[in-house]
Amino acid sequence: MKTTAVIMAGGRGERFWPKSRVSHPKQFLSLTADGETMIQKTVKRLLPLVAEEDIYISTNEIYRHLAEEQLPNIPKENILCEPAPRNTAPCIAFAAAVINRKYDDAIMLVLPSDHLIGIEDIYVSTLKKAIATAESGNNLVTIGITPTYPETGYGYINFGSECKDAYNVERFVEKPDLATAESYLASGKYLWNSGMFIWKISSIMDNIRKFMPAVYYGAIRIGEAYGSPDYSEVLEKEFKAMPSESVDFGIMEKAENIFTVPGSFGWDDVGSWLAVERINEVDENNNYIEGNVSFSDIKNTTVCGGKRLVAAVGVENVIIVDTDDAVLVCSKNSTQDVKKIIAQLNEQGKTDLI
Amino acid sequence: MKTTAVIMAGGRGERFWPKSRVSHPKQFLSLTADGETMIQKTVKRLLPLVAEEDIYISTNEIYRHLAEEQLPNIPKENILCEPAPRNTAPCIAFAAAVINRKYDDAIMLVLPSDHLIGIEDIYVSTLKKAIATAESGNNLVTIGITPTYPETGYGYINFGSECKDAYNVERFVEKPDLATAESYLASGKYLWNSGMFIWKISSIMDNIRKFMPAVYYGAIRIGEAYGSPDYSEVLEKEFKAMPSESVDFGIMEKAENIFTVPGSFGWDDVGSWLAVERINEVDENNNYIEGNVSFSDIKNTTVCGGKRLVAAVGVENVIIVDTDDAVLVCSKNSTQDVKKIIAQLNEQGKTDLI
Repeated sequence: MKTTAVIMAGGRGERFWPKSRVSHPKQFLSLTADGETMIQKTVKRLLPLVAEEDIYISTNEIYRHLAEEQLPNIPKENILCEPAPRNTAPCIAFAAAVINRKYDDAIMLVLPSDHLIGIEDIYVSTLKKAIATAESGNNLVTIGITPTYPETGYGYINFGSECKDAYNVERFVEKPDLATAESYLASGKYLWNSGMFIWKISSIMDNIRKFMPAVYYGAIRIGEAYGSPDYSEVLEKEFKAMPSESVDFGIMEKAENIFTVPGSFGWDDVGSWLAVERINEVDENNNYIEGNVSFSDIKNTTVCGGKRLVAAVGVENVIIVDTDDAVLVCSKNSTQDVKKIIAQLNEQGKTDLI
Repeated sequence: MKTTAVIMAGGRGERFWPKSRVSHPKQFLSLTADGETMIQKTVKRLLPLVAEEDIYISTNEIYRHLAEEQLPNIPKENILCEPAPRNTAPCIAFAAAVINRKYDDAIMLVLPSDHLIGIEDIYVSTLKKAIATAESGNNLVTIGITPTYPETGYGYINFGSECKDAYNVERFVEKPDLATAESYLASGKYLWNSGMFIWKISSIMDNIRKFMPAVYYGAIRIGEAYGSPDYSEVLEKEFKAMPSESVDFGIMEKAENIFTVPGSFGWDDVGSWLAVERINEVDENNNYIEGNVSFSDIKNTTVCGGKRLVAAVGVENVIIVDTDDAVLVCSKNSTQDVKKIIAQLNEQGKTDLI
């Protein structure tokens, strides 16, 4: 059975402001020294498993040019632009219906565009196990990351009995508090929910029809119109009519035959500016310094310089990010609050800075 | 007797980098909301005591245009440019010799150009007492600031018996450690050394001749050449030959008839970026915010925005100063270390940023 992939690249990357902007979000940025963007890395690491002609990019019309520029080998017709944000369930149904026009069933990998993977060989072999599990039945498979510390910012997967290469999923749980996260870690029965899914198109579409029929029939109509002159109009009408819902809540928490394949491949969701020091090399004072920076007596500090000089003196546990029109100075304890700045700028009508 | 004033404006203001630059130092900047520069304020508050034609600016040739622009009512010939930095004793001797060409003795106020005064009426009445003390004999008078806390960054004046409007000075002491500063404060016999001096030209010149004869005779030769075609050449030769020495060490610690007039007029030496929150109004979280700034959950923080947006999130006890080509992020405990950045930039040949 053919393996296809859908890379979800519609996010706005607000937590990476000011480098990430609505017009140029995180997945289209490079946050590593090699200069490759997040989405370029995502595609590259998939190539042992999926041909470029079978990789689809799910995004927004305003990012089409970035996707085309950064991924010149992906067929232009594989860049699927959603007319409105509707979360992951409609996104997946849309892509599944389009791919189904080409193949009479196929394996479908659903992958975020803005995560990093440290050990790509293990990543590929983990996906292979997930593909085998997906092929062997009407199964919905998710990659669970073996947790290394009690993170409170991720959802967890509680797994049960082993079943060949995978484990039955008992339940998905929301972001826990620290004590709960510690108990999950101690139990050895919980994995981090990575947001990577593997299934046959027939398996996920059966479940969407069962649990989200409006999404299913809308997606079918979009798939039928794909490539026709009516496509834009149908997509606009049908997609916008879909409810906004995540595949986790809409399908995974309700369906049967849910499996997880545990993975330990140096996964990082690059969820905030805190990630930069994790994914790059730090100095002896635990600083990560990049670009046009002078500093004196700083500790545990990340500085991403821009065109101008950034001078950091005596600060600790701070993240400084300079860009042409904005500089962020953020405590490491407050990286999630970068969104509050974006909200303020929105209110003030300073949309050119967002 | 005429009252004249010499405003010392040759400093480089390194502790106010990046706003203060070698090419445009602190005394020529405005650090207050009214937009007046430090030197403009210094001149303005003197006008009840000294006519503009009797105010002299002691500075460096590279600051002549700034002094002329900012102080258009000061006669151009009153802007005295030192050919090399030689600390305050040669500076004062040079100015005294020049003023002596115009007046057969006069009162001479020697004042820093980059301090702030909160209550100008008290400042003026304090100077009047100092002038009276200076006129009454061969006295050297300094203004001592009544200390309000055990500052370790200033020199202190230990005063003795009262003598009309002033007190005899027992001794000058260097910057103390905290315990010593606390004992000074508790004793009630110590004042902060403000670096403001008041004397007759004849009094200071007699002392310079006695304690620093090379400086005295050099200054006399400069004074004789002042206004003649040879002036530049004589100034260059004689001034550069003078030893670099402060008037405190070279004269005040050695001379007799030293007096101090205590003053409580809201003096601030504006010695580092910490001053900005002292001299401006802060918000309920003790933040001072100026310019193009968005912020969330910050405390005890000073942000001076520039053209670009500064976004400050979750930080405490930090000073952020944005300019076109450099942004400073400095812990409040490290404001003196801004000089280390300047030293680094110097080493790296990045003189355009200094």
